[in-house]
Amino acid sequence: MARTLIPSREPDRGRSDRVALDQLLDEVLIGYVALSLTEGPLALPVSFARDQNQVLFHGSTGSHRMREFAAGAPICFTVAVVDGIKVGRTAFGTGMRYRSACLFGVCQVLEGADKVAALKVYTDRYLPGRTGEVRPMAGRELAATMVLSLPIAEWSMKAADGFVDDDAQDLALDSWAGVIPVSQALGEPIPNPDLRPGIETPGSVHALYQR
Amino acid sequence: MARTLIPSREPDRGRSDRVALDQLLDEVLIGYVALSLTEGPLALPVSFARDQNQVLFHGSTGSHRMREFAAGAPICFTVAVVDGIKVGRTAFGTGMRYRSACLFGVCQVLEGADKVAALKVYTDRYLPGRTGEVRPMAGRELAATMVLSLPIAEWSMKAADGFVDDDAQDLALDSWAGVIPVSQALGEPIPNPDLRPGIETPGSVHALYQR
Repeated sequence: MARTLIPSREPDRGRSDRVALDQLLDEVLIGYVALSLTEGPLALPVSFARDQNQVLFHGSTGSHRMREFAAGAPICFTVAVVDGIKVGRTAFGTGMRYRSACLFGVCQVLEGADKVAALKVYTDRYLPGRTGEVRPMAGRELAATMVLSLPIAEWSMKAADGFVDDDAQDLALDSWAGVIPVSQALGEPIPNPDLRPGIETPGSVHALYQR
Repeated sequence: MARTLIPSREPDRGRSDRVALDQLLDEVLIGYVALSLTEGPLALPVSFARDQNQVLFHGSTGSHRMREFAAGAPICFTVAVVDGIKVGRTAFGTGMRYRSACLFGVCQVLEGADKVAALKVYTDRYLPGRTGEVRPMAGRELAATMVLSLPIAEWSMKAADGFVDDDAQDLALDSWAGVIPVSQALGEPIPNPDLRPGIETPGSVHALYQR
């Protein structure tokens, strides 16, 4: 059963909308996994993919951190995106349009068919359709990769959209207020320097770039 | 004295270059503060500013988390940026161009002139020159704001640039490889709906948008 943690401060910024959470998870390229280690807290940037009710991570089976996750360390997985810079009439009124979410839980190691399916989701998340263009993963590649799944069960989301909300007495100032939108842009694909001649840019790359 | 922690895996991706660290800190809009709480790890997205050898955070004096930082909880402050999607000839070869850094330490509360100076740096970091266009912060605004400083002393940085490094046997595949650059874009400034007529877009906003 999904439990939604509404943030205690700024309750107007809390979101309990799973559709909005999924959209955020599908939109950001990386997230941050926080772990409590003996030597102190650690937040690691990670690539990830959402597959229905789980968040998938992968890494090398030789990675110390991956083994830590796999051993059942409780994690916090955080994603955020800045949608704009809110420019207030005063320095105090300045802030951001953003969306952020924290997911809490423990990861499970995926094996066998689940692992293969998860890696397909992973690849197609960053480049939709790519798995249809490349060879299947080799046995040695699968063996070198650990895939972890975090259930989307305990989470909280915050969002600030709209415009600057300056104090009433500041509305009379001769000072500008507004928003500078921030977004992510993709540049024109650059072929690898060692690419063999005659190999065209694939459909998956074209489609992503033109989106 | 600065201590640089070189990551144990992928040592070729370790960076000990303070200039590269400062560039990353000055470029990303938000970072992630990780804390080890009794109930588990937590990573919070935060706005911040770098001022020489410190990273500055601010928040409400009423915030539970701010008080936790102020009380000397050890934190990990992580920043990362994705510079591109590396498309391999195989699913296994797919990855990212990125830069990331983790800073470790304990925050100090800034007061008095240090606090005022830090808030000026903070505002001008997101919108260079803005403090010259708005009134100084009011006493009640200063009183409602807590400013924390994390020294840039213990940190590690990783970066992956360049191109896809597919296995030798995969270079013969009829499969494309390359990089799709990713960058941050600013949109045209949108005035607040309640902006009084006749107030022009300020120089700071023009300059940022045109950069």
